Amino acid sequence: MKIGILGGGQLARMLALAGCPLGYEISFLSPDPKPCAALVGRQIHADYADEGALTRLAAWADVVTYEFENIPAFALRLLAQSAAVRPGVDALASAQDRLLEKQLFADLAIPTASYQRIDAESDLHQATQAIGFPAILKTRRQGYDGKGQVIVRRKEELAPAWRRLGGQPAILEEVVAFERELSIIAARGLQGEAVFYPVSENLHRNGILRLATCRPDDSMQARAEAYARKLLTRLDYVGVLTLELFQVGDRLLANEFAPRVHNSGHWTIEGAATSQFENHLRAITGLPLGATTPNGVAATVNFVGALPPGAEILRHPETHLHVYGKDPRPGRKIGHATVCAESQRQLRGIVPSLLALAEASEAQLWRQHVHGQDALRCGRSPM
Amino acid sequence: MKIGILGGGQLARMLALAGCPLGYEISFLSPDPKPCAALVGRQIHADYADEGALTRLAAWADVVTYEFENIPAFALRLLAQSAAVRPGVDALASAQDRLLEKQLFADLAIPTASYQRIDAESDLHQATQAIGFPAILKTRRQGYDGKGQVIVRRKEELAPAWRRLGGQPAILEEVVAFERELSIIAARGLQGEAVFYPVSENLHRNGILRLATCRPDDSMQARAEAYARKLLTRLDYVGVLTLELFQVGDRLLANEFAPRVHNSGHWTIEGAATSQFENHLRAITGLPLGATTPNGVAATVNFVGALPPGAEILRHPETHLHVYGKDPRPGRKIGHATVCAESQRQLRGIVPSLLALAEASEAQLWRQHVHGQDALRCGRSPM
Repeated sequence: MKIGILGGGQLARMLALAGCPLGYEISFLSPDPKPCAALVGRQIHADYADEGALTRLAAWADVVTYEFENIPAFALRLLAQSAAVRPGVDALASAQDRLLEKQLFADLAIPTASYQRIDAESDLHQATQAIGFPAILKTRRQGYDGKGQVIVRRKEELAPAWRRLGGQPAILEEVVAFERELSIIAARGLQGEAVFYPVSENLHRNGILRLATCRPDDSMQARAEAYARKLLTRLDYVGVLTLELFQVGDRLLANEFAPRVHNSGHWTIEGAATSQFENHLRAITGLPLGATTPNGVAATVNFVGALPPGAEILRHPETHLHVYGKDPRPGRKIGHATVCAESQRQLRGIVPSLLALAEASEAQLWRQHVHGQDALRCGRSPM
Repeated sequence: MKIGILGGGQLARMLALAGCPLGYEISFLSPDPKPCAALVGRQIHADYADEGALTRLAAWADVVTYEFENIPAFALRLLAQSAAVRPGVDALASAQDRLLEKQLFADLAIPTASYQRIDAESDLHQATQAIGFPAILKTRRQGYDGKGQVIVRRKEELAPAWRRLGGQPAILEEVVAFERELSIIAARGLQGEAVFYPVSENLHRNGILRLATCRPDDSMQARAEAYARKLLTRLDYVGVLTLELFQVGDRLLANEFAPRVHNSGHWTIEGAATSQFENHLRAITGLPLGATTPNGVAATVNFVGALPPGAEILRHPETHLHVYGKDPRPGRKIGHATVCAESQRQLRGIVPSLLALAEASEAQLWRQHVHGQDALRCGRSPM
């Protein structure tokens, strides 16, 4: 079985590592000259809109999938002419436009934060009357890791925020004072069968996921599954889907969904019977889905910008390290560690030291970065 | 970190798959023009005795390891001049010669079956007086998967057996009426710290491992660990070592050890907190060893010669498939499935159907093979 993947980052790399044991051949289409996934597959070095390259990939592959949602929908439509594309174009189209995504949630009676459509700067005033302050202005497209969004605290910040986002079509969204950020990873197979992982509780800083903790038997599990199931069914979805949620009291609000494997599910590699990567591949190739039973309780700590020494990360024997093979750079996810513990108590004994390690390395990188910029800018610090 | 591996088979491939997440670069030295490991690393295509190729590998690698023990010891000595070679030459030298291996076991007071050294055909008569019949004549070197050994049931079979093995230095060994075949996988790190997996109970047919079942809390665990620990310490061992044992009543006899990851430990990929492959790499690169805690109870079924359809293998959601990417051929291990169950009872409900699948595919391959040979030999069947 030949599998084409759009994208060559760490998600593509982890998909390929899960695909090797299944006997799959993998090719990546990526505009990156040195994508980190290329270690475990062949690369077609091209832009996502390169019709010739897409045609070559589709001719080679039995199934094409993607590791992120910011690819042109027409590329999927072109691929779909000669290869199976899973998940399909509908899922991608909804996920890559915040307005369509909110409308889909509304159609499915999945609650969300309040929002208003912003097509022009002139829409902003009326929208804030409905939403109030603070609010978040988010571009409809191309947002990830906190990019493409600005918090607006008062009227005077509206115009600068609009300009900062480039005057693109956007939504203005209520700021939700949530108690927890959760996500649920679901997989649906070719025959419509679905499996769900235990929800993950997520902690972000500066818009980037830092810590994802698996929560078996969470009180919100059933509702999260029900919402995810509605999405899977409506989209006639095949593959892994991730739904991000906010918990506010006993309410669960959908934030967004990703039509793909997700950072908040990396703990499934060691922490679940079958990883999200393996289940995605099983789903899109028509194999039966694997069990999602957790192995104890697991948590994933992201390494952003810089990687602490391996021997320190692995000091606790319950810890596993994943290095993505990407050059260190501020704000860039370059690896993660997963702790698989027997209990939440044991987990709480290990995770803080990993978070501290991650933060210390990141802070050191920033200091070096600032120092470098200082030298260039004669003393002005960006921090 | 750059790791060189002698060998490019499925063990090397699974080592490389465990090495990618750790951020390691892998190169294989293999005489096979298309080794199945090459999917996940670079290949140096050369014989194990090719001094130029060995020198190139040693110059490139930080650490060199091996996936099987039938490589010339001088190759390791050459490599050791410019790279760390782990496990070391002593372990390899003992493991690749059945006589040295038995002597090592005796030195360490690890019980074994009785044996006699056979240097020439004339030694056979006296040896059988000590050992009795039936006995097994085994070449001292180059034995694996039941190759290099012949059962001798009476005096008249001695000379033919000797000739069949090519008149090589050998041992004549008592046939042990064992109740169980067990193996224990152990790992020892650079600082001398050691970890042990639960023993595995193994089932062979035609000299080839068919089924390996993890046995947490086995009554023989402590003794198996004690024997493995003696070996690790004596050899100042670094990496994963496998000790194969026979249980006879409440006695445990060492059969042989392998200075490497082992087929009977494949269940550790999904069935233990850290796989044997990851722990081997952690050990040889000086990282802390990972936990060996089992995830429930696991068993591995080998696919020999032929591979059943993936959808049938994976029918039970607790099952995982590993395809090695090797061409199907009678007697050749080309993949395995591991079942991770919550209980021995659940395991017993799944494993028989997998064994049946494996046997049906192998039988079909034999029929095709015989049919092909029939066509060539005008009706003579090798079965």
